[in-house]
Amino acid sequence: MTVLIVGTIGLDTLETPFGKKKDVLGGSGIHAAISSSFFAKTAIVGVAGTDFPKEHFDFLASRGIDTGGIQILPGETFRWSGYYEYDMNQAHTRDTRLNVYALFDPKVPDNLKKAEYVFLANLDPELQLKVVNQLEKPKLLVMDTMNYWIKNKREALHEIVKKVDFVLLNDGEARQFMETPNIPIAAARLLKLGTKAVIIKKGEHGALLFTDGVHFSAPSYPQDILRDPTGAGDSFAGGFIGYLAKTGDLSEANIRRAVIIGSVMASYNVEDFSADRLRRLKHKEIIDRFNEFRRFSEFEAISAAMLS
Amino acid sequence: MTVLIVGTIGLDTLETPFGKKKDVLGGSGIHAAISSSFFAKTAIVGVAGTDFPKEHFDFLASRGIDTGGIQILPGETFRWSGYYEYDMNQAHTRDTRLNVYALFDPKVPDNLKKAEYVFLANLDPELQLKVVNQLEKPKLLVMDTMNYWIKNKREALHEIVKKVDFVLLNDGEARQFMETPNIPIAAARLLKLGTKAVIIKKGEHGALLFTDGVHFSAPSYPQDILRDPTGAGDSFAGGFIGYLAKTGDLSEANIRRAVIIGSVMASYNVEDFSADRLRRLKHKEIIDRFNEFRRFSEFEAISAAMLS
Repeated sequence: MTVLIVGTIGLDTLETPFGKKKDVLGGSGIHAAISSSFFAKTAIVGVAGTDFPKEHFDFLASRGIDTGGIQILPGETFRWSGYYEYDMNQAHTRDTRLNVYALFDPKVPDNLKKAEYVFLANLDPELQLKVVNQLEKPKLLVMDTMNYWIKNKREALHEIVKKVDFVLLNDGEARQFMETPNIPIAAARLLKLGTKAVIIKKGEHGALLFTDGVHFSAPSYPQDILRDPTGAGDSFAGGFIGYLAKTGDLSEANIRRAVIIGSVMASYNVEDFSADRLRRLKHKEIIDRFNEFRRFSEFEAISAAMLS
Repeated sequence: MTVLIVGTIGLDTLETPFGKKKDVLGGSGIHAAISSSFFAKTAIVGVAGTDFPKEHFDFLASRGIDTGGIQILPGETFRWSGYYEYDMNQAHTRDTRLNVYALFDPKVPDNLKKAEYVFLANLDPELQLKVVNQLEKPKLLVMDTMNYWIKNKREALHEIVKKVDFVLLNDGEARQFMETPNIPIAAARLLKLGTKAVIIKKGEHGALLFTDGVHFSAPSYPQDILRDPTGAGDSFAGGFIGYLAKTGDLSEANIRRAVIIGSVMASYNVEDFSADRLRRLKHKEIIDRFNEFRRFSEFEAISAAMLS
């Protein structure tokens, strides 16, 4: 089943305690699509400038990613420049240049309008709505957002939240959007807005899934190799939706597995700059780490008699 | 098997978004002992002033807690006054009055020198060392500490860490003590100092266990009732050691269960002020929540074939 990813295509300039990189492959759509491509046929809708290097298109093609939905507009590609301090938890923006992204008017190509698994990566919620309106029969719509839209386009966000199946946010965004410091309460409020499930990404602290009546807590990975956190959340999302598309199984048990797959992909993504770790990632490594997640979150039942 | 808890006995004045309380039962030793008493015969060593209310002694006795090791010194009991803001994650101290605690010279009563399960709650590390030197055959020594001692008594802390089996810290303390923002690296450094296991308490994000070669990640509890976080870490520790003493089983599988029991006790403790929730807690509720922890952290294996 094809996964459709709509998001930014960017060139990132990054600085972390482990090095500096200039104009490397980045963007929410790119990180999500690469991650998804490990599981399912993946297509990307977005916009790039005429300066977007051919080698990146070649790399995406080598992963079987359909780039036919990437509009090439005259001008420069979206650029983000940022740095991470020693604790690596917080991205600090130096510069954001929208460039051709400012002109982005998403058009879903005809062959993708029937896409059933769709991830709306962080994007202006009005553009996310435009995408949804072009889809013919989405089976699973997943969205992400960010603090900027929560602050500036709250109404459009409410509207898109109602239309999607899964809302994927980091913990800070969930707190800000639902105006409570309490994550379970924020999740309950998001569910009340009309989405079916909420996934809270907590970076080094794992991820939480909330649906009506079900809660799942995915463990954090003991990440001792952490070179560049950029794109972790999008790798999570790509792995999550790619795995669900591949298996075609939206049972609760499988959604739990998909959350772990997302966590696995994010944990690899941060081990190197840009998408470099995923470039050399093998399927066997995904399985191995999934099994590691199982080993370090398992515990056995206790008998009531033991406590009496 | 008797659990010996050494820690502070206090009267807390608390303010949270859910109310104010003046001079209520508190202190690291108290919270830990009450929690431990749900599982094992528990004794407490500490110091109180002549103003410490008889009703608190009566309550401790009603839980079967041996208070013979509490020295009563002329003067006032240790007092802490603090508040929590809306996000409840950070305690803000208004006032700390050591009172008789400044004179505390821990003496383990003869009948407790043979105690095998010992928790050294947050306390001057030099006093923790004094306690250890009085013990005849500890089987499991667990310690906690806090930022103040990390800053001011680093050498004594290094010494006590070497002597204990388990170091229990919150994530901020672990980062500060081992001078790294990375939790797995901090844990590895603590293990190198000579302790057998490290448990990192992350409050709303769960808890992590690190031993040589084993990692366990305990999920967070989706805490929608959170009135007073004071004593959560000590309730965790008390439940953890009480459960291990009760079962007498120090296998890895049982230590994992003990981490969950600790998480269960902490999750109840924060539901009301002081130890009020634990006053009315039933064994059945402990089992029920343990099973909840299992339900919301379980996920099934994937087959490698699914990804090929």
